[in-house]
Amino acid sequence: MGEPSRVSRVVVTPVAFADPPLLNVVGVHQPWALRAIVEVHTDDGLLGLGETYGDDAQLARLRAVADALGGHDVYDLVGLRRLVTTVLAKETGGTAGASFGGMLDVDSAVDVVYSPFEVALLDIQGRRAGVPVADLLGGRARDEVPFSGYLFYKWAGHPGAEDDAWGAALDPDGIVAQAQKMVDDWGFSSLKLKGGVFEPEAECEAIEALAAAFPGMPLRLDPNGAWTPPTSIRVAERLAGTLEYLEDPTPGIPGMAEVARSSSLPLATNMCVIALDHLPPAVAVDAVQVVLSDHHLWGGLKRSALLAGICQVWGMGLSMHSNSHLGVSLAAMVQLAASCENLTYACDTHYPWKTQDLVVPGALSFAGGSVAVPRTPGLGVELDRDTLGVLHEQWQVCGFRERADTAYMRSVEPGFEVNTARW
Amino acid sequence: MGEPSRVSRVVVTPVAFADPPLLNVVGVHQPWALRAIVEVHTDDGLLGLGETYGDDAQLARLRAVADALGGHDVYDLVGLRRLVTTVLAKETGGTAGASFGGMLDVDSAVDVVYSPFEVALLDIQGRRAGVPVADLLGGRARDEVPFSGYLFYKWAGHPGAEDDAWGAALDPDGIVAQAQKMVDDWGFSSLKLKGGVFEPEAECEAIEALAAAFPGMPLRLDPNGAWTPPTSIRVAERLAGTLEYLEDPTPGIPGMAEVARSSSLPLATNMCVIALDHLPPAVAVDAVQVVLSDHHLWGGLKRSALLAGICQVWGMGLSMHSNSHLGVSLAAMVQLAASCENLTYACDTHYPWKTQDLVVPGALSFAGGSVAVPRTPGLGVELDRDTLGVLHEQWQVCGFRERADTAYMRSVEPGFEVNTARW
Repeated sequence: MGEPSRVSRVVVTPVAFADPPLLNVVGVHQPWALRAIVEVHTDDGLLGLGETYGDDAQLARLRAVADALGGHDVYDLVGLRRLVTTVLAKETGGTAGASFGGMLDVDSAVDVVYSPFEVALLDIQGRRAGVPVADLLGGRARDEVPFSGYLFYKWAGHPGAEDDAWGAALDPDGIVAQAQKMVDDWGFSSLKLKGGVFEPEAECEAIEALAAAFPGMPLRLDPNGAWTPPTSIRVAERLAGTLEYLEDPTPGIPGMAEVARSSSLPLATNMCVIALDHLPPAVAVDAVQVVLSDHHLWGGLKRSALLAGICQVWGMGLSMHSNSHLGVSLAAMVQLAASCENLTYACDTHYPWKTQDLVVPGALSFAGGSVAVPRTPGLGVELDRDTLGVLHEQWQVCGFRERADTAYMRSVEPGFEVNTARW
Repeated sequence: MGEPSRVSRVVVTPVAFADPPLLNVVGVHQPWALRAIVEVHTDDGLLGLGETYGDDAQLARLRAVADALGGHDVYDLVGLRRLVTTVLAKETGGTAGASFGGMLDVDSAVDVVYSPFEVALLDIQGRRAGVPVADLLGGRARDEVPFSGYLFYKWAGHPGAEDDAWGAALDPDGIVAQAQKMVDDWGFSSLKLKGGVFEPEAECEAIEALAAAFPGMPLRLDPNGAWTPPTSIRVAERLAGTLEYLEDPTPGIPGMAEVARSSSLPLATNMCVIALDHLPPAVAVDAVQVVLSDHHLWGGLKRSALLAGICQVWGMGLSMHSNSHLGVSLAAMVQLAASCENLTYACDTHYPWKTQDLVVPGALSFAGGSVAVPRTPGLGVELDRDTLGVLHEQWQVCGFRERADTAYMRSVEPGFEVNTARW
C-alpha cells in the first residue's frame, strides 16, 4: 500500500447490442445500440471498468485519452480531468452528443469522455480499499436502489425483421400491456412513459389509462420538449393529480420556467439542465423542480454526487436519467444512487429493453423493481469475456457508427420531421 | 481488507493552550483557547484524529456521540450523521456556538459535532487505503496550500501577565510591525486584518499603512459585522483599490446584499453564510462573492468540499476561515484546501498565534506562507502524547470552560459593549 497504483494499460472496446424500435421525439432507436467499455489496468494487477457512449466520435476521444493515461495515479482525478481537457483540446471535429440521436445539445466533450475513466479509477480505488464505490462517494445511504419501469411507444419489430418479444405499443392499450409486462417481470413500482411521439392528448390518454390500470402507481411522462409552453401548461393542468412529475415538456430554461410558473406539477429535466453550468440560470428562475442526474453526461460519479448535493441544498428533487446501457453502467448508476441521501424518485433505466449483457450474471439483479447495492469492492461487477467478445463482434458487423434516430426513422417514413416544440 | 474497519474505542480529550489578547468585535480572546481532540480507534488497530471546539457544551455532545460509536463502519458517513442527529435529539441545553464568543449565530449542533468524527473516519479511510485524505476528497489539486497572515489589534499582554512576544498593536504602526514579523517569520504573501475594534476610519488607515509598507501584497479586512450598510459602502469605496476582499462589513444577508449592490469590491463572509442552508438565499440576492469554508463549522470535510463545488458552479470565490486551532485542525484544513480546485484565495489561520501544539513536529511546516500537503496516509499527522498531556493538564487548571470574549473584556473594561453594527 506504500506506492500508489498506477495505470499500466487501457483497453477501449466498442460493442453493439440489439435494441428494439423505441419511438421518441426525434425518431426511433436503430436496431443496434452502441456502447464502449473502458478497462483500466494498473501496475499492481487491479482492473477498473467504465461504460459510455460508443459512437465513432466518442471512440476516437476515448482512445486518445487511453493513449495518454499510462502511469497515471489512480487517485489523481484532478489530474485525469486536466489530461482529458488537454487531449481533447488537440482534437477537432465530431460532436459531444453523437450518441443522443439529436435529442440533446451537449456542450462538453470533456464531461462525457472523462466519465468512464473516472468510473474505472473509482472502481480501482474501491477494489484497492476493499469497499464499494458508494463508500467512496460519501457512504451508502440505502441498501437497494429503486428503478422505474421505462415505457415506450414502439413498433412490433424493426422493419424487415421479426417482431420482438414486446410487440407493438402505439396506443393506450398497448402501453398498459407493456407496463403490465414490465411490472410482472421486473417488479417496478413506478412507471415512466417516453412521449413526444403522438399528439399530447393521445399521450395524456395513455397516462390516464396507466393510472386506471395501476391505481396509486407513481407515473411520469417525458415528451422530450415536444410541446410549446401553452400546450405544456394545458397538459400539466390535466395531469396534475396523475403524474409525480412532468419531464421536459418544452425545450429550454425560459420555456420550462414559463410552464413552472403556471403549474403546481413538478417539472423534471434531462434536457435543459445537463451540466453543472446550467444550474445557476435554472435555479435563478425556478425552471425545474427535479433534476435527472446521469454520470455519463455530467462528468462522472463525483460531479454527479455534487449535483445531488446541490439538489439537496436548493430543495430540488433528484432522479436519474438513462440511455440504452449495459451492466457496467448499471453498476455505476447503482453505486451513485446508493450514495445519494436525497434520491427523491426512482431512477430511470433502459435495462429491461436489452437482451444481452457483458457482465458476469448475478451481481446485479432486479427484485421488486430495485437493485441491491453490491457489497463487493469497487463497482461490484466483472466482465464476461465471452459476451464482451460477442458484443464487440456485433459492433464490427452491425454497420452503425453513431446514433441517428431521425435518419433511421426517415428510412421508414421519408417525410418524418422531429417533433421538438411541434405541438 | 475483506472486513470493514469498525470503531472499537473513542477518546475525547479537552485541551487548552495559551492565547494572546487578540481584540475583536465582541471583546478579546481569553488567556486560554479551548479545543477538543477526538481519537477514533478501530478493531484492526487504526487510529483517526479530529479536532474541534472545546467548550463544555461541545464536550458533552462529543462524549455522547463517542459513547454511541462502538462498532461503526469507518466508511459509513451517512450513518455517522444519522447517529449524531439521533444522539443530539436526546440532548437539551447549551448552544452550538459556545466557542465563537458570541460572534456567530450557529444553528446546527449536528454540523459542529459531526465534523471531528467525520475527519477522524476519513483519516482512518486514508490510512487504510494508504493515501492522503485529499485523495479521498476528489484528489489533490495542489501540492502546497497558501495561507494569509492573520493580523489582530491586541494588547501587549493579558492584564496582570507579562507582555507576550508580539507586543501591542493598537494603531497602524503597531499593525505594520506585527505584519512585518508575520511576513519575516512565516513568509505569508497575503495579509488579513481582524477589524471591528476601532472606528472604521482608523481601520482603513491601518489597511492603507499595510498597503504602503507591503506594495502589491493582497490585503483583507474583516470587521465582523461592525458596520451599518452605509458605512460599509463608504469603506468599500475607500478601499476598493486596496483590498482583495472585504469580509463581513455588516451583519446579515440583506445588509450584505445592499452593500454588494453598491460596490465593486468582492464581499466575503464567514458570518451570514455559515451552513449549506444559507447558500440559496445568499445566492438569490448576490449577497456575497467569496465564501469562507470551515470544516469545523460546515459539518466536516465532505460538506466543505460540497461548498467548494457550489462556489465553483456559481462562480463565487472560495477562501477558508480559522478559529484558534492546533495541528490536527491544520492538517485537516490543508487536506481540504489541497482538494479544492477553486481555492481562489489563501486560507486564514490563527496558527502563528499559538505557542504549543500537540502533533509530532515536522509533518506540517510553513515555507513562504504555505504548507506542503503531506504525502503520508490520512491526515498526515500523529499525536505527541506528551504535549497532549500538557495541554490537557492546562485545560484542567485554566478555569475556562467556554469562550466568552465579551465577559473577559468586561472584566477589564466594565462598560464595554459589543461593536456589532455599531458604526
